[in-house]
Amino acid sequence: MTAEAEQGFRPLDEASLVAYIKTTPALASRLGGGSLDSLEIKEVGDGNVNFVYIVRSEAGAIVVKQALPYVRSVGDSWPMTRERVYFEASTLREHGRLCPEHTPEVYHLDRAMSLMAMRYIEPPHIILRKGFIAGVEYPLLADHMSDYMAKTLFFTSLLYNNTTDHKKGVAKYSANVEMCRLTEQFVFSDPYRVSKFNRWTSPYLDKDAEAVREDEELKLEAAELKSLFMERAQALIHGDLHTASIMVTTGSTQIIDSEFGFYGPMGYDIGAFLGNLILAYYAQNGHADQANDRKAYKKWILKTIEESWNLFQKKFVELWNKHKEGNGEAYLPDIYNNSKLLSVAQKKYMTNLFHDSLGFGSAKMIRRIVGIAHVEDLESIKDASRRAECERAALNCAKTILKGRRQFETIEQVIVHIQSFDQD
Amino acid sequence: MTAEAEQGFRPLDEASLVAYIKTTPALASRLGGGSLDSLEIKEVGDGNVNFVYIVRSEAGAIVVKQALPYVRSVGDSWPMTRERVYFEASTLREHGRLCPEHTPEVYHLDRAMSLMAMRYIEPPHIILRKGFIAGVEYPLLADHMSDYMAKTLFFTSLLYNNTTDHKKGVAKYSANVEMCRLTEQFVFSDPYRVSKFNRWTSPYLDKDAEAVREDEELKLEAAELKSLFMERAQALIHGDLHTASIMVTTGSTQIIDSEFGFYGPMGYDIGAFLGNLILAYYAQNGHADQANDRKAYKKWILKTIEESWNLFQKKFVELWNKHKEGNGEAYLPDIYNNSKLLSVAQKKYMTNLFHDSLGFGSAKMIRRIVGIAHVEDLESIKDASRRAECERAALNCAKTILKGRRQFETIEQVIVHIQSFDQD
Repeated sequence: MTAEAEQGFRPLDEASLVAYIKTTPALASRLGGGSLDSLEIKEVGDGNVNFVYIVRSEAGAIVVKQALPYVRSVGDSWPMTRERVYFEASTLREHGRLCPEHTPEVYHLDRAMSLMAMRYIEPPHIILRKGFIAGVEYPLLADHMSDYMAKTLFFTSLLYNNTTDHKKGVAKYSANVEMCRLTEQFVFSDPYRVSKFNRWTSPYLDKDAEAVREDEELKLEAAELKSLFMERAQALIHGDLHTASIMVTTGSTQIIDSEFGFYGPMGYDIGAFLGNLILAYYAQNGHADQANDRKAYKKWILKTIEESWNLFQKKFVELWNKHKEGNGEAYLPDIYNNSKLLSVAQKKYMTNLFHDSLGFGSAKMIRRIVGIAHVEDLESIKDASRRAECERAALNCAKTILKGRRQFETIEQVIVHIQSFDQD
Repeated sequence: MTAEAEQGFRPLDEASLVAYIKTTPALASRLGGGSLDSLEIKEVGDGNVNFVYIVRSEAGAIVVKQALPYVRSVGDSWPMTRERVYFEASTLREHGRLCPEHTPEVYHLDRAMSLMAMRYIEPPHIILRKGFIAGVEYPLLADHMSDYMAKTLFFTSLLYNNTTDHKKGVAKYSANVEMCRLTEQFVFSDPYRVSKFNRWTSPYLDKDAEAVREDEELKLEAAELKSLFMERAQALIHGDLHTASIMVTTGSTQIIDSEFGFYGPMGYDIGAFLGNLILAYYAQNGHADQANDRKAYKKWILKTIEESWNLFQKKFVELWNKHKEGNGEAYLPDIYNNSKLLSVAQKKYMTNLFHDSLGFGSAKMIRRIVGIAHVEDLESIKDASRRAECERAALNCAKTILKGRRQFETIEQVIVHIQSFDQD
């Protein structure tokens, strides 16, 4: 961060936010201009990391986010760069350009203030994870998410861009290193060692957590994925694409919270989404009751997993074919110039991406069970013993996928594998 | 390049170089200070890319390099960023810090002028490639090169550095993209398509060159290596570590010409060196005559290939073990905390690196036979038919290594493979 940015920073509260909006035309005009004396402001930041305000006037509503130089819920004992807002807005803008249907607009970025304003994603949108807990089906989810992932990943990769543009992006997002380091620690390291941040459903999973820390094969795979995460600049990824970064209605899917965005391996985004779907699946046994055994819902989740990958693969390859004569530097048209060769190349590429996605997805599942930051899908199961059963099934499934991911050829095989760990 | 740097640039000649030296204390003092009226200046740039001057006074000698904004031998029809001098000096300084024994000191860098001054590598040092043609054995070559590669690659990787420093380096060298693009085109693309830059010993190798362009398996492997080269920021590599970037005596090895330096895959450097040793091997049949059948020399080259990899591997792993409790972010000590697990991890890492090196090495061999910029080892064989025989053997060896690299477990197996293509 420049000294300049440091200087211009001051944390806002409801009152000073009003003043800020009044003197910021990009925001004032969004709220209808005028005197703006009856702004209604609600802080909805969940108390976790940032301050998030919903600001309403008679003319409309916006969301304003401000980051403090530490994790809000922990305090200044856990410093965290304010620059994350800059990278969140940058990623959101770039992804929004590529896939506006599923990305809220950024109205304003004030880097010095670590503040951004974006479209208010109005009700009845809810966080997807909460929809899963409630057992709501989203018939368009796989279609929308495959669209978002195919477009954002393809168009920011060397399949579409030339090296010059690609390396410019890599250089820019290299500065988002503090956020990357959080992932490195919490996803790829802490679950495999004793760490004060680790947490699990004790005492039920004590032995399971210990087994993860002592599983040498698992640790070797985790190291390989960690290196991939740290070294491979494949595309501008969202970096945190779990089901609480997605807001939905049955007809709309909006992706938010891209402060972990950087040039990393595509499989990390795809895996995050699929892994969180699998966690949602295993959580269902904990939500089943006499009124609803959740069996049909579990089938719907499995179908969504299947369709998400298959549609993603189809759309990604379609984009590739559509732009195969373009500026993409990885597969030049005068070399990969016959459709048979290109199709073999694509198959190889997609198989590698599939295995990466399974690896990252299962690594993310593991950390949600024995590491920091669990998922509400499982946390909301009150009965600890019942929760532990769901978690153990998910953990065992994830461990075997992580180790054996290269054996899977289709998502259908993965579905069968998931079901085989289901104690139901 | 900044506008500032653009402004401060003027191309020097012998006369203006003298004036430049006199007003640049870092250079004047290297040459003994004083009036410097009897400087002796010799331009030795081989006419290829840059202007290279050896500047002598009674007190000493230095080398001054200046880049023009195009390839010198072609003229301004082939623009090439002057910034390459900045990256050459930066890489040289960084590698010199890590391995001063084999890297000449940089005395001075003037980014605006695209000018650097460095240690004059005095006679009897010659370009290694010329030594190979003359049939000179360098008993310390494998030891020195393995030292250089182990130190520069290990200490600029995430095995030694933390992510923050690593990504800073990645960002800085991302701007050396124009040089990377040359490699992408000439090593990974042009040999596999019709290109005006391609050249081979015609008509003898016409069918061989065509076969490369039509070999689909080869093209798929080339694409995979190209992606690795473009996407994987594993270490600060030299980027052009062939045997004309190395100056030697029987007791000294000095690595120069690092203008292709960037954060890329380690195997690209190791492969460049090994691949050029293999080319030197296949060229020997063309240099054999009644006075010297070169059989003993060929054995020495094979031994050097073998030792270079084995010593590299040994030294690299030794560095890893020595620094395993350090700041390296890839394998944290409290996870990879027992020697058996660490040793399995290292074996896996080195096997992947071995296969990468074989892949990049064979890709570089191929381009030296059917692409742009051949090697003097082969070019100096006057009889075209004899040269073509050597080249065909090298080409066939390279193609099979590129396709089958993952089957090799040891360098000794590669040696046997190399010999099997030798028509001698």
